[in-house]
Formats: sequence, structure tokens, C-alpha cells
Amino acid sequence: MSSLIPAFTALKTTNPLVHCITNVVVTNFTANALLAAGASPAMTDIPGEAEGFAAIAHALLINLGTPQAEQREAARLAAASAHAAATPWVLDPVAVGVLPVRTQLAFDLLEHKPTVIRGNASEIAALAGAGAGGRGVDSTLDSQAAVPLAAQLAQQTGAVVALSGPTDFLIAPDGRVLSLSNGSPLLTQVTGGGCALGALIAAYVGACRKGKEPGTGTDPLWATAAAVAHWTLAAQSAAESSQGPGSFAVHLLDAVANMQAEDFYRASLTQGTVADV
Amino acid sequence: MSSLIPAFTALKTTNPLVHCITNVVVTNFTANALLAAGASPAMTDIPGEAEGFAAIAHALLINLGTPQAEQREAARLAAASAHAAATPWVLDPVAVGVLPVRTQLAFDLLEHKPTVIRGNASEIAALAGAGAGGRGVDSTLDSQAAVPLAAQLAQQTGAVVALSGPTDFLIAPDGRVLSLSNGSPLLTQVTGGGCALGALIAAYVGACRKGKEPGTGTDPLWATAAAVAHWTLAAQSAAESSQGPGSFAVHLLDAVANMQAEDFYRASLTQGTVADV
Amino acid sequence: MSSLIPAFTALKTTNPLVHCITNVVVTNFTANALLAAGASPAMTDIPGEAEGFAAIAHALLINLGTPQAEQREAARLAAASAHAAATPWVLDPVAVGVLPVRTQLAFDLLEHKPTVIRGNASEIAALAGAGAGGRGVDSTLDSQAAVPLAAQLAQQTGAVVALSGPTDFLIAPDGRVLSLSNGSPLLTQVTGGGCALGALIAAYVGACRKGKEPGTGTDPLWATAAAVAHWTLAAQSAAESSQGPGSFAVHLLDAVANMQAEDFYRASLTQGTVADV
Repeated sequence: MSSLIPAFTALKTTNPLVHCITNVVVTNFTANALLAAGASPAMTDIPGEAEGFAAIAHALLINLGTPQAEQREAARLAAASAHAAATPWVLDPVAVGVLPVRTQLAFDLLEHKPTVIRGNASEIAALAGAGAGGRGVDSTLDSQAAVPLAAQLAQQTGAVVALSGPTDFLIAPDGRVLSLSNGSPLLTQVTGGGCALGALIAAYVGACRKGKEPGTGTDPLWATAAAVAHWTLAAQSAAESSQGPGSFAVHLLDAVANMQAEDFYRASLTQGTVADV
Repeated sequence: MSSLIPAFTALKTTNPLVHCITNVVVTNFTANALLAAGASPAMTDIPGEAEGFAAIAHALLINLGTPQAEQREAARLAAASAHAAATPWVLDPVAVGVLPVRTQLAFDLLEHKPTVIRGNASEIAALAGAGAGGRGVDSTLDSQAAVPLAAQLAQQTGAVVALSGPTDFLIAPDGRVLSLSNGSPLLTQVTGGGCALGALIAAYVGACRKGKEPGTGTDPLWATAAAVAHWTLAAQSAAESSQGPGSFAVHLLDAVANMQAEDFYRASLTQGTVADV
Repeated sequence: MSSLIPAFTALKTTNPLVHCITNVVVTNFTANALLAAGASPAMTDIPGEAEGFAAIAHALLINLGTPQAEQREAARLAAASAHAAATPWVLDPVAVGVLPVRTQLAFDLLEHKPTVIRGNASEIAALAGAGAGGRGVDSTLDSQAAVPLAAQLAQQTGAVVALSGPTDFLIAPDGRVLSLSNGSPLLTQVTGGGCALGALIAAYVGACRKGKEPGTGTDPLWATAAAVAHWTLAAQSAAESSQGPGSFAVHLLDAVANMQAEDFYRASLTQGTVADV
């Protein structure tokens, strides 16, 4: 049995309520991706509501793509509340290292112990304190080359670090590494491809919140891997029937919804440790 | 002739200008749904503009999905202005009862006499003062069970209450009830399915604003029913050719645009009073 | 060789980073249109980030569709910064003349010398000081009739004025005029059709920023014409395989991505001067 299936089963049986504080470019696509996967999105991003909701949701996503002042305040309150209530949460530090306001915010939010940090190599390097970031939202750094920095960030923060790229590397604080090589170049031609994945990771870790034991198939590392596999396998399948990025985005949502447990056997997954990469 | 056709004809001949103050998740889908139906959307949601625009638009929608402070102020100004100018307006109290800031706002806005209130059972129950709401944006209450509360809210506020669910119940302040059982489960897998319907209701009541006489086919109750039929019949047709929620959302917009008067004969519509339900 | 191809080549070889400050309705569609064309969108619209980013991006778009207070401040800072850094920038004055807050903002932004101003006839007339604007976001004025006003605005501001309509007229400050008659009526049934074109114009002028000589095929007039041709030819092609506005929007993104240099020979393009129109 694929070790990714227990997390998928948890997702399907939980229908997790995913609290999203995310950027205005991708709210719609993110909500549709969560619905397609079988999760319930709720975009609650104002002070006075976000903090209470983070305590009752299955999981929280904080994405820093367009961090207006009111949303920044909501993000701080929600992260603190999630941490206090043991709600798993995902930090997606979009364009951190390039843009100053969100960079400061990201560092502040790390104090509230995200469960998972998802980003491209430039973003992860910037959070690990080793880079000035990429070019806008694009990475200027290779994902494999950033694994040591990702491992350092995972160790420092206690978070699983999900490093996106042609190969996705997932690094646990204890040094375990999973890598997946599915997906399609079309994913980079649709805005929010990474942002929606961040939300899907939140859905999976939220559905698996009882899976605390490393290696059970539902601990945060494996839950993250299942989300990445779900998303990138769906992308691979969607790409086959697409004529360009417009139809790809449509087919991607269909494929996310139509994903079956047995599809996870197609995941190109390797296990190891930081020392192996 | 279907009693829903006069409202559809009014929509098509008026090309109503629909002022929308809505949440960031669904702005694009809502605008596209209005355009597909033959209405003109305008998302004017800042103080200094919203109040003036509400007075000249054919109709106003206020949806409370992501109520930032500036938008809350715009909503208050626009509702007051719409009421003063006799612009019909629709209140969509997303997640009211669960989240405190919008709940307070919704109660405040009721003072400006919405023409229609659209929500799921949990939201309607919360506005009627009888519930603590649902789970995020999802209802935890059956729509039929909420009809008495909806009738109470209609009577208290003078608004038509549109209660969404597998069967949609539309309740007028005078106790008339229309119910429709069209649609598709896929509508719940696309974000903004209900929010866009709220905007379409605004388009219909705006186009029918001269239809003040109950039972004429263009009074607010019938205008709302025509909007619900337009949306749910289009959904039913779109579902037939869809492979999942991604393609469904695309086909739904096509079907809304391609709707013809004769399609309304396919509506599963019943008439009665609150006592019958 | 079509005189539009040098600009297209510049776009494809530059992969310009396009800084967008735009409205919440169209952020997603705009970003996807830019990605489809081969540009990199970045939606950086908060004070503290926008000003720095406008100086390093290839181009900036400021669209006034939903100008919240924080975004207005970011727009002012970014426009000033773009002007100082010689970053080409595009102003899209949505609904100017109808709505007061953005009208004031648009006049203020003109001081920072936009490279291109894109709008419909009502918006251009309002900016030229000769009209009270349209009906919401729709023009109530014919595009050809507005050419003299557009020429006046171009001369006053030093910007290329791109006047949208069934025929698009592009007017340079020196009186040169290009007109294009491609496109599809479906473009008006998809929200953000004009807004996304504004972003694409920014991408082209950004990619061609070294093309200062009039008539080289890459000066701002020709860069704008190439953007209009790219968008409207893609629309024409997408319309052929669409069943309505939903599928049209999807096919449009595909067609934008699949555009080839030779497709520009299909552009219906005329050259002249203001005196000829």
C-alpha cells in the first residue's frame, strides 16, 4: 500500500475546515482547490474574527502574497491563536526576502510555530537567513541546492519545510526527507499553483492532526507529502488533456476532485535523510 | 406560460446595473455570472463612492464574506443610500452567527430594509435570532426545517427570504412561499455558487423594480424565484457535460448565458404558503 | 514582416516582471493573462513595498477598479517611483468620471507621467476633461468619436492613449494613430477583458523599454499595438471554439499562450495620424 494513502483517507473522512488568510490573487482558485479535494475553505481574514476562527478550524493557512495592514494584524492574531489551540498551520511566505513588509511579518509569525512552511528555494533561503530572495514571486535558486538551508530552517523552527520546484523536497525537523517528482511545467503558468498547494497542505495536516507519530503515514511530513502528491499527480493528469494554461487550470480542479486512493501509487516518491540529498 | 418568464424578460430588456459589495473570494465569478446573465456588474466598495453609486444603480448586493473595515463602512453607507433612493437591495449574510464582526454588521444593515435576504439555513436562523450559526460558510441545519424561522425573519424585516439548500424556499413577508428543486450537488463544490446567486437575485429584482404588485410575476418574490430558477437550471444543464467542479464552473457560466425563456418551463416550482410547508 | 513582431519578440525574450496594482475583481485573470503571454506578474500593492518594487520591475500597471485607501497610497508611491526610475507604466482609469474618489486619484497620478493610458471612450473623455463618464464601467460614448479627445489627452500628458472599443485606436503624443479591428463581442462578456489588456500593454512596453525611437516597432505606440493585437487576435481565435463566456475565458488564456509571431499577420491594422480619423 502506498504510504500516502492513510493521509488521503483521513482527508476524505474528515472534510476539514481550512481557515485561509491568503492573497487576493488566489482566493478563488484556492477555495476551489480545497473544495475539489473535499475540504471546506473559509476565508476569514479580519481582526475580531480570525483569532476565534483559527481556534476552531481543523487547520490554518497564512499566505503572505498581498499583506494589507488589516490582514497582517489578522494573520498575527490567527497564528497566535492557532498555536495556543494546537491548530496545525501552514506558512506560505510569498516573495519573502524581496519585499520588506512581508519579510518582517514572516519572521514574526515564525514565533507561533508553523506546522509546515511551504515556499520556493528563494523564499526558504530568505527565511533561513541566507539570501536576499528571488525575482518577485519566482525563485532564482534551484530547489535541490536549497535543501541544506531548508533542513536548517526545519530544525530551527520545528516545522516541516516543503520546498517547491521541479522536484519537491519535504524536510522534517528530525532530518527525514521525502522527495516527489510529479507535476507539470503548466503548474508554473497558472497563478496560485503554489498558493493552492499551501492550502491543500493545510487541509491534509488538519485532517491528520491526530497523527503525531513520525512515520505513521499521517504525521505532518507524510500529510504534506500526500498533499504534494495529490496536487502534482492531478497536475500531471490535467496536463495530458490541456491545450494551454487556461484549460489546464480547469482540468486541474477536475483532476483534484477525481483523485482516487490508487492514484497515489503513481507518485514518484523517495525517502531518505538530509545527508542523502 | 411559466410565471417566471416575465422577470426573465425584464432582465433581458433592462440590462440592469448591479452594484456589488462582495467578498474577495468571489468577485470575479460573481461579475462573470452577472455578465453571462445580461447584467452589468460594478464592484464599488469604498466610502465616498459606494453611497453615491447605490442611488443610481438598478440594484445593490451586500455580501458579508470578507468584511474588511473599509468595506463595512461602505456597506453601511450604500445600504442607507439604497434604502433612501428605493434601490432594491439584497443582503447575503455569509457565515453570520459564527463570526462576530459580520454578525453585528448584518443586524445593523437590517435597519436599511433589504428587499431580499439570501442565505443557507444556519445563516437565516442566526438572523432570525434562533441559532449560533453553522460551520464556517456551511449550513449545519436543514433548509426545510428552517422555513418557520425564515418566515419569521421575512415578517420582521419585510424582506423576501431566499433559503438555499437542495430545495430552495423563497418566503415573502405576507406568507407566500415558492419552492424550487433544481440544481446540482456540483454547485456546492464551486466557491461562490451561493454568492453569485445573491448577485443574480439583485439583478432580477433590479430589473423588476417596477413590479410592486404581489403575484404579477415581477414582484420581488417572483423576481427572486426567476433568479433561482435561472441559476439552478443552468447548473443542472452544466452538470450534464462536466467532468468535475472545474469544468462545471465553466459550463455553468456558458449555460447562464445561453438560457432561453422556454427553459423556465423545466423549473420544478411549487407555490403555497408558510402553513403548507 | 508585420511591424508588430519586434515587440512580440521582445516580450518573449524578456519575460518581463510586471508590477500590478489592480482591482480585486480581476487580479487572478490578469495574473493568468500575463503568465500565458510569457510575463511574470507580481501584485504588490501595499505602501512600504510598492514603491521599491516599481523601481525594479520591467513595468507597472495601475488600475483603479477598486481603489481602497491603502491601495491608493501604494499607487501614488509606485507611480512616483516608476517615473523616477524610468519604469514604463500604464494607467487604467476604470470608471473615472463616474466615481469621485478614483477620478481625483487618476488626475493626481497623471503628474507621474504614465507611458500609456488605456480606457474606453467615456473614461478617456473624462480624463481629457470633457465628460462626466459612462455608466459604471461601461462606456456610453463611441470610441471613434473620442479620438480627438484622446489625441488631446495624449498631447497633454505625453502618454500613448489606448482607446478601447470595437475598433481600438492608439494615439501617440506626436499625433500618430494606429487602429486595430480584431477581437470578439465575447470579450465584453468576461470581466476584466480590458483590465487584463492593460496589464499586457504594461508587459509589452516593459519588454520594449529600450525602444525609444518612434516607428521602430518597439516604441510605446507599437508596443501597445502589439499587446492589443496579441489580446484581440487571441480573443478572435478563442471565440471560434467557445460555447459561451465561460469557455471563452478559458480558451482565451490558451490562445494567448499559443500565440505565434506569424499570427500577427492576421491583425487588421491601419496607420495614420489624428487628422485621418
